[in-house]
Amino acid sequence: MPAPPVRLADVETPAAVVDLDRLERNITTAARYATGHGLQLRPHVKTHKSTAVARRQLEAGAVGLTCATPRELDVMATVCDDLFWAHPPVGAAKIARAMALPPHVRLTVAVDDLSQVAALASAAVAANRRVGVLVEFDVGMRRVGVPAVPALVTMAQAVAAASSLAFDGITCYPGHIRQPVGEQASALAVLQQRLLAASDALSAAGLPPRVVSAGSTPTMWRTHEVPAITEMRPGTSVYHDRTTASIGVCTWDDIAMTVLATVISTSIPGQVVLDAGTKALGREPMRGTDGEGWAVLQDRPHLVVERMSEEHGIIVLGDDPWRPSVGEVVRLVPNHVCVAMHNFDRVVGVRGDRVESMWDVEARGRAGLVP
Amino acid sequence: MPAPPVRLADVETPAAVVDLDRLERNITTAARYATGHGLQLRPHVKTHKSTAVARRQLEAGAVGLTCATPRELDVMATVCDDLFWAHPPVGAAKIARAMALPPHVRLTVAVDDLSQVAALASAAVAANRRVGVLVEFDVGMRRVGVPAVPALVTMAQAVAAASSLAFDGITCYPGHIRQPVGEQASALAVLQQRLLAASDALSAAGLPPRVVSAGSTPTMWRTHEVPAITEMRPGTSVYHDRTTASIGVCTWDDIAMTVLATVISTSIPGQVVLDAGTKALGREPMRGTDGEGWAVLQDRPHLVVERMSEEHGIIVLGDDPWRPSVGEVVRLVPNHVCVAMHNFDRVVGVRGDRVESMWDVEARGRAGLVP
Repeated sequence: MPAPPVRLADVETPAAVVDLDRLERNITTAARYATGHGLQLRPHVKTHKSTAVARRQLEAGAVGLTCATPRELDVMATVCDDLFWAHPPVGAAKIARAMALPPHVRLTVAVDDLSQVAALASAAVAANRRVGVLVEFDVGMRRVGVPAVPALVTMAQAVAAASSLAFDGITCYPGHIRQPVGEQASALAVLQQRLLAASDALSAAGLPPRVVSAGSTPTMWRTHEVPAITEMRPGTSVYHDRTTASIGVCTWDDIAMTVLATVISTSIPGQVVLDAGTKALGREPMRGTDGEGWAVLQDRPHLVVERMSEEHGIIVLGDDPWRPSVGEVVRLVPNHVCVAMHNFDRVVGVRGDRVESMWDVEARGRAGLVP
Repeated sequence: MPAPPVRLADVETPAAVVDLDRLERNITTAARYATGHGLQLRPHVKTHKSTAVARRQLEAGAVGLTCATPRELDVMATVCDDLFWAHPPVGAAKIARAMALPPHVRLTVAVDDLSQVAALASAAVAANRRVGVLVEFDVGMRRVGVPAVPALVTMAQAVAAASSLAFDGITCYPGHIRQPVGEQASALAVLQQRLLAASDALSAAGLPPRVVSAGSTPTMWRTHEVPAITEMRPGTSVYHDRTTASIGVCTWDDIAMTVLATVISTSIPGQVVLDAGTKALGREPMRGTDGEGWAVLQDRPHLVVERMSEEHGIIVLGDDPWRPSVGEVVRLVPNHVCVAMHNFDRVVGVRGDRVESMWDVEARGRAGLVP
């Protein structure tokens, strides 16, 4: 790893920049909330994909980490011995990679299909390991997860019957709850009822859930209003973005990740072209809140990247008096940080404008195409 | 590089898969068209970002390569000695990387601002190299480029006055011409008029353009109808995608790149969940043509990935009788291959279903954060 440049202005753009003070505050705030409400905190690493950041989360009190991909599992096993694989474990190659994690790593897997239970049970026997299982419960997101409580109980029983698996409880992702934080009460009440119904049915079957694990950043500060939940898995909150600020999960000054970009052209009147396009910012719409475009200037959030090509982002100035010169460097707040970060291999850590460190986005990508 | 698995079914998903027969045909067809019409072919590497693919393009007759990022320049300099940097050269770090290319590499750069000319001229002096320059002309895309002919001439004169620069001509990107191929005639006639006006003005100033370089894949087969153009720079056509097939630039059977994905959940009735989401497919809309969603099944193109999370893609089945099992492997055609490929570090090359080779997407990402 080369030594970091001293000044942010020397960094080649587009670049992913993380404000370390804000990063540390976001990590501490989440940990304090979880501790204060007796919740386990298991951050999702999909947002940062970095062992350097994961270490800070663990030091702040996270009980373990949540991963989506085998690559994330592989990388995070180097800094954490308690990993939750929150993605359906399907495919021999993926399962083999998970089973090849170091034996000291406690692995827990989310399942939503009996075929997954069977495949996982066999693979665990072959790997001579005992794998924890949370049955995925659909609580309204309609993505993955068993939607009906009786089927959830059947799946829990199948898990409990497998000697290589341990039924630990249920998991859900309330990603459909996207309204501003102040408007979440009724949706959270419905969530509590859903989770209680599932817990009661499992208990009646002799399988009371030890863990009830739930996302997400949009609902994180109201998790305690859903007392059935024992564990929270926010991902985005480590960095935050335009969307989470807009729905009130954080303030604008909590946003830790920005994309450093350079004004590369002003030749078309009325607009400014930056060197950050789809391959830096991603093309994610605002969700659960209004907002045009794909990113905004950090210090002029009314100026929006309205159009993008792969390596160009265009801000239409309209009546705004900002008239930057070619070469001016700006910082952009993307709509969705998790997708923006996935475009970068390396992060520049800053305090104010001083570059303090750099780290790799080690768990980006897939690698390991062969089983 | 590990040995490739023998069967496509053994590849961990999501994965970028390229059909080698189609790749080779796409490369040959583009080269034959260019030769047949007396056009220079300089493919844009942004789509494949791979030296393995670039080599095949050069062997087929490409005169050089087009790059957008310093990373692409660095990587492609290992296989090609004639590179065109088709992105405004702004920022000391970027220019320094371009100047550090091996001295035998002939570098040509697109500029659209006098400040770029000055910076490039000084850097070229310091690096003791002579850099070719094409002045970027806006022909209606309204992204970068000088929109007015007199300003274009002024910039060409500034280039010609710099001893370290060589004025080679003009470049444009007619990315606004996106209608189906059969409907492009009038837009191409306007383009010809624009380019002729620019050429005439430059000639009158004693600076006749030796090169008139233009994209793009959507217009590639009608480039000869714009006789002012001397060089074409298609990128997407090496792989093609749902968009280029939809506007008639290629047939469905010419699409060489697909994303291999696995059915990971069918637990929500009426839908199928795949393990390819935003971080595999990108979230690019169809442009210049209709089409819902973000990708379609290669062998059932009426089935569309309608919703995505980062690692989930959801196909809503409706009345379609397809009812795959969890574990079934499918191939997806993304809307925009250039952005999809940027999500992968490695490509699996196949003939039919047999895996023949793997290669790295070497020019993906940025690297080189320090000057």
